[in-house]
Amino acid sequence: MKNSRRDFLKAAAVTGAGAILIPAATYGVTKKKSRAVKHPIGLKDNAIILFQGDSITDAGRDRKNSEPNNTNAIGQGYALFTAGHLLEKYAEKQLNIYNRGVSGNKVFQLRERWDEDCIALKPDVISILVGVNDYWHTLDGGYKGTLEKFVTDYRELLSYTTQKLPNVQLIICEPYTLRGGGAIKPEQWYPMFDEYRKATLQLAEEFKAIYVPIQTIYDKAIKRAPDRYWAPDGIHPGLPGAKLMANGWLKATGLYKKGKKKKEKDSDS
Amino acid sequence: MKNSRRDFLKAAAVTGAGAILIPAATYGVTKKKSRAVKHPIGLKDNAIILFQGDSITDAGRDRKNSEPNNTNAIGQGYALFTAGHLLEKYAEKQLNIYNRGVSGNKVFQLRERWDEDCIALKPDVISILVGVNDYWHTLDGGYKGTLEKFVTDYRELLSYTTQKLPNVQLIICEPYTLRGGGAIKPEQWYPMFDEYRKATLQLAEEFKAIYVPIQTIYDKAIKRAPDRYWAPDGIHPGLPGAKLMANGWLKATGLYKKGKKKKEKDSDS
Repeated sequence: MKNSRRDFLKAAAVTGAGAILIPAATYGVTKKKSRAVKHPIGLKDNAIILFQGDSITDAGRDRKNSEPNNTNAIGQGYALFTAGHLLEKYAEKQLNIYNRGVSGNKVFQLRERWDEDCIALKPDVISILVGVNDYWHTLDGGYKGTLEKFVTDYRELLSYTTQKLPNVQLIICEPYTLRGGGAIKPEQWYPMFDEYRKATLQLAEEFKAIYVPIQTIYDKAIKRAPDRYWAPDGIHPGLPGAKLMANGWLKATGLYKKGKKKKEKDSDS
Repeated sequence: MKNSRRDFLKAAAVTGAGAILIPAATYGVTKKKSRAVKHPIGLKDNAIILFQGDSITDAGRDRKNSEPNNTNAIGQGYALFTAGHLLEKYAEKQLNIYNRGVSGNKVFQLRERWDEDCIALKPDVISILVGVNDYWHTLDGGYKGTLEKFVTDYRELLSYTTQKLPNVQLIICEPYTLRGGGAIKPEQWYPMFDEYRKATLQLAEEFKAIYVPIQTIYDKAIKRAPDRYWAPDGIHPGLPGAKLMANGWLKATGLYKKGKKKKEKDSDS
């Protein structure tokens, strides 16, 4: 093996990005058996990882605290459990993990604060979970957005992001609902909301993003315990749901388990 | 196989309790290679699991919230990461997880509130992490306790507990310090504090408790990242340290990975 460590890392990063085609085709909407990407996404030393989204990501974080890797700043949701796992398992990489989710946000509201709350942080990895409010807030007539606006806004957000940060690794999390949750009246939500879910998978394919098929993950989990065990209102996860989502994120990115170290006799030569 | 499910569960519980002899002899003080128990501790359906201790367990929990499995009530420390793992992985068991750690507590202070904050909850599993304040608070002369008092008080607490709750599974976590942390002046702490650590291992053996060798776990972790990455002041873990400790707890109890289900053709017959 004559490859340098630099080449190896570069190859790993490329494989990670390319591997989206596997889970995107297999995951989520079609409810086929889930299948993790074959190679973990590349995480360079000191990589900056950003979680973005709405209240599910926000999860009670202290918005005055802008520090990375800080429990109060990361909140109490899936981002915390994901961050804990990454910071423990990949300690030697000295990662920097931020959460900038804001409760109530729809896609166009992410866009309004994107320069400050995303681009300025120069993230290497951006994970986005958004969409439930884009539909939910239309139900009482207070918000006039449509599926078309959701897709257009989301595509523009992703285009802008990849233009500003050409090397970023995107991770798109599927918006989801748990049918038996307290805030879900099924006749109001289905099948209309399913189209929002499906749109995120198509955007993930379009932008070569890793896709985290959260609806599929919950659909499987409710065979083990009732909907409200995971997310009492069907939208905001409780403690078990937050950990479940973190596991899903870690498996979709290939980062749940640490791969065996390659032996590199000629490293950095 | 003619064993009923009831017999199988009983056998599993007994094996779990008996397995303490392995980790207690292998773990902790001697710094030998860590070795998980061979069988997980028994967790019956609806089992009540209680975390007890000082600020490391407390970890900013909302003490007015007495609900089980509630993120605010469980705080942001190792108990949260342990609870998240257990609640996700063993969802079908519908566990009830409480945290009653109180910042600043020494052993005698646990005893003062033990009837209300432990016995009354009727826990099936009690995990205790205490000891650092029993030494720390003597350093400025404000607290006059000794190693002997620590051991006597701790033994009495455990005796009382097993008398009131004869079937309880005890888990004792090793008190620890990280030498490079901001609150640790090594000449003040070592070797005196080591005796407090060693005493907890002996008490674990005496009471057939599972032992979580946290000092050993940190000693290994600081080969991957500096002391302050795990616990800035050397006592209170940050996010990476909290997850590290949770992993240690889960491995010592055998609950990190879920065992394969036994096929039971004659279950409940």
